[in-house]
Amino acid sequence: MVQKKNMIICQSGGPTAVINASVVGAYHRAVKAEGIEHIYGGYNGILGVLKEELIDLQKQDSVMDGLQFTPSSALGSCRYKLASDFNHEDYRRIFQVFEAHNVGYFFYNGGNDSMDTAMKLDKYAKESGYDIKIIGIPKTIDNDLQGTDNCPGFGSAARYINTSLLEAAFDCYTYSLKTILLMEVMGRHSGWLAASSALAIYNGEPVPDLIYLPEVPFSQEKFLSQVKEKFKEKEILFIVVSEGITDEQGEFFLAEQAQKNDQFGHKRLGGVSLYLQDVLEENICKRVKVINPGILQRCATHCVSGTDLDEAYWVGYRAVDYALQGNSGFMAAIKRLSNQPYQWDVRLVPLEQVANKEKKFPTEWIVPEGNYITQDAIEYMKPLIEGSVIAPLWKGLPRYNILKREFIPRKLNSWK
Amino acid sequence: MVQKKNMIICQSGGPTAVINASVVGAYHRAVKAEGIEHIYGGYNGILGVLKEELIDLQKQDSVMDGLQFTPSSALGSCRYKLASDFNHEDYRRIFQVFEAHNVGYFFYNGGNDSMDTAMKLDKYAKESGYDIKIIGIPKTIDNDLQGTDNCPGFGSAARYINTSLLEAAFDCYTYSLKTILLMEVMGRHSGWLAASSALAIYNGEPVPDLIYLPEVPFSQEKFLSQVKEKFKEKEILFIVVSEGITDEQGEFFLAEQAQKNDQFGHKRLGGVSLYLQDVLEENICKRVKVINPGILQRCATHCVSGTDLDEAYWVGYRAVDYALQGNSGFMAAIKRLSNQPYQWDVRLVPLEQVANKEKKFPTEWIVPEGNYITQDAIEYMKPLIEGSVIAPLWKGLPRYNILKREFIPRKLNSWK
Repeated sequence: MVQKKNMIICQSGGPTAVINASVVGAYHRAVKAEGIEHIYGGYNGILGVLKEELIDLQKQDSVMDGLQFTPSSALGSCRYKLASDFNHEDYRRIFQVFEAHNVGYFFYNGGNDSMDTAMKLDKYAKESGYDIKIIGIPKTIDNDLQGTDNCPGFGSAARYINTSLLEAAFDCYTYSLKTILLMEVMGRHSGWLAASSALAIYNGEPVPDLIYLPEVPFSQEKFLSQVKEKFKEKEILFIVVSEGITDEQGEFFLAEQAQKNDQFGHKRLGGVSLYLQDVLEENICKRVKVINPGILQRCATHCVSGTDLDEAYWVGYRAVDYALQGNSGFMAAIKRLSNQPYQWDVRLVPLEQVANKEKKFPTEWIVPEGNYITQDAIEYMKPLIEGSVIAPLWKGLPRYNILKREFIPRKLNSWK
Repeated sequence: MVQKKNMIICQSGGPTAVINASVVGAYHRAVKAEGIEHIYGGYNGILGVLKEELIDLQKQDSVMDGLQFTPSSALGSCRYKLASDFNHEDYRRIFQVFEAHNVGYFFYNGGNDSMDTAMKLDKYAKESGYDIKIIGIPKTIDNDLQGTDNCPGFGSAARYINTSLLEAAFDCYTYSLKTILLMEVMGRHSGWLAASSALAIYNGEPVPDLIYLPEVPFSQEKFLSQVKEKFKEKEILFIVVSEGITDEQGEFFLAEQAQKNDQFGHKRLGGVSLYLQDVLEENICKRVKVINPGILQRCATHCVSGTDLDEAYWVGYRAVDYALQGNSGFMAAIKRLSNQPYQWDVRLVPLEQVANKEKKFPTEWIVPEGNYITQDAIEYMKPLIEGSVIAPLWKGLPRYNILKREFIPRKLNSWK
């Protein structure tokens, strides 16, 4: 007879449009598993374990399916880093909770910080001889995780950005007026999302004329001369800028500008696009439009990519599969098998290869001028925004679901 | 035998997500009309007539159907006001063009300025004895046209705003942190779009806690005390502000603030939400998130309301119907027949009742505190965001169509 264990899954870091699909995938595999009895969601990431705030997902089975089409982290989130020192009380507490609730499987759904948490817990478990299988489940709109072809969450954010940029292009072409449209896109450290904007096609050509990534040091002077040059060729220009562009010294460009402005007692708000709008209006064109979708780009489940939703679901599902087979200390990663047709599989990569690392947008995919991306990059990204999903509606709006924050009875004292 | 005439349709004013559906509706009716030979689109509104820049829509028949799912004005747009004095050379020129091209039907698709153009042309035609049928076709995301229950374009913008706000709410509820989300919504003179945000429902309650409209004079002091009060009840607060809020003197609130800031040589960018973010962060909460979708809210065809798309199509279709019956000098308006189920018809209203007028958000639909709307308002708006449309896709993105700007041969000299 199989010895039954319980499982905990948590979400951590910034939300995405498909992160809940990973929890649903994991849940669907777990409910079928002979070796798993209760399936708990830890509320607010690892804090949910520390605080012993666990949600019994099977008790909300009817909500679980709908979570596939629900943005943001249904289990809540946190940004909480575990200490490097295994003597830290957090470890003792976490494993007390695991033990108290007979937890034999732990899944952490997040980005590279989250993979650090998963890795540390796996190491601690192995050192202390606690029998638990720990697998990381990737997510991030930034697409900057090592060891995986792409990250669930990226394709949907990219699809939203491209849909928005395409629609903005139609808006701009309405008037026969010299116009610059400046779109600011998320990505503090890597330019994947900004780069993805080259997928939007208007009249056979990519919408963006210039793309600025954090991977290329940003110079305002060079920027102005490149825009001036392009503006000679076209009346209506589209520029995409990553929020995280940095100067030659590696400082955030906006932070640098904000310092300059400090003498006026003025706090610079609203991101790099508003600053550049000012610069462009003063130097190049009176009509500069800005779009900065902000948090909307990471939670636009109404605009989800079918491929991305699939990937999110299956990394969750297969993570549980792999854990049931006895694996621990890995992340369930996407392995691309072919480009046309796009085929992929879920494979394990050791958490050490992912934790705390960043996958920058590759230098070889950036043109020599530093202001655009290559066709190889476009071919890589194309399949990730494809496939659409008809999500359920309610009164004209997406029918999103909410998991009740009802915790199972405590077995330990309160934390701290 | 019916004497065949040609028809011109133009679009004017700001784009919407469904404005092209009206052109397609008109086109579909016109191609079936015995009395109509050629169907021309005037390029860039009335300027297309003045400049004799006319597009033969039948030559691009294969594009026309796809325009139903294409944002922004496929025929281009303008903001060009005709003189009040009928002796102005524009009138002579316009009717020379009409005559040269045997135009017997003219349709102008736009907002209240556009209805002014249509009205003047109709009057001029009647005074000068030129036989032409002129009908206005309404559109505006602002929903501020008189004589019509609602305006095609509004429902889709409202659906986009509500979808975005709902998704932003899911994003904010991820973290258990005190947060204020401030959403800025279009509407320089009327608060319909800001008001519509009350349709977004999270956990059984409308997402917005406070809504500020241009119809209610805005006081920063009152605003702060209302936010403070609400913030005692809830950890996460949602505030929707119309871009056009005005002070007690009727001045745009932002313009007033910008003047105050002028002494620092600083140009205030980015709308009222960034200003209020600053105010809230200084006075109430450190974590204030801003979303300002800007032009995206008026061109989000990917998020179109089925009801709105239908209305846009049929006001176009029926406008041609009514013209063929011999009517001129009217706008094709939406008449609401019932609320549940939502039923409506297209009726004529005289252009004088619409031109240059604005329909403000009704005072009786605003709560006494001036910071929210009533249930009657919600019942009015509900049906307008309902119904979804599966628009065609191409490589993962909406398949939008572009009308070629190929003009028919000139018959007159150049304009001016």
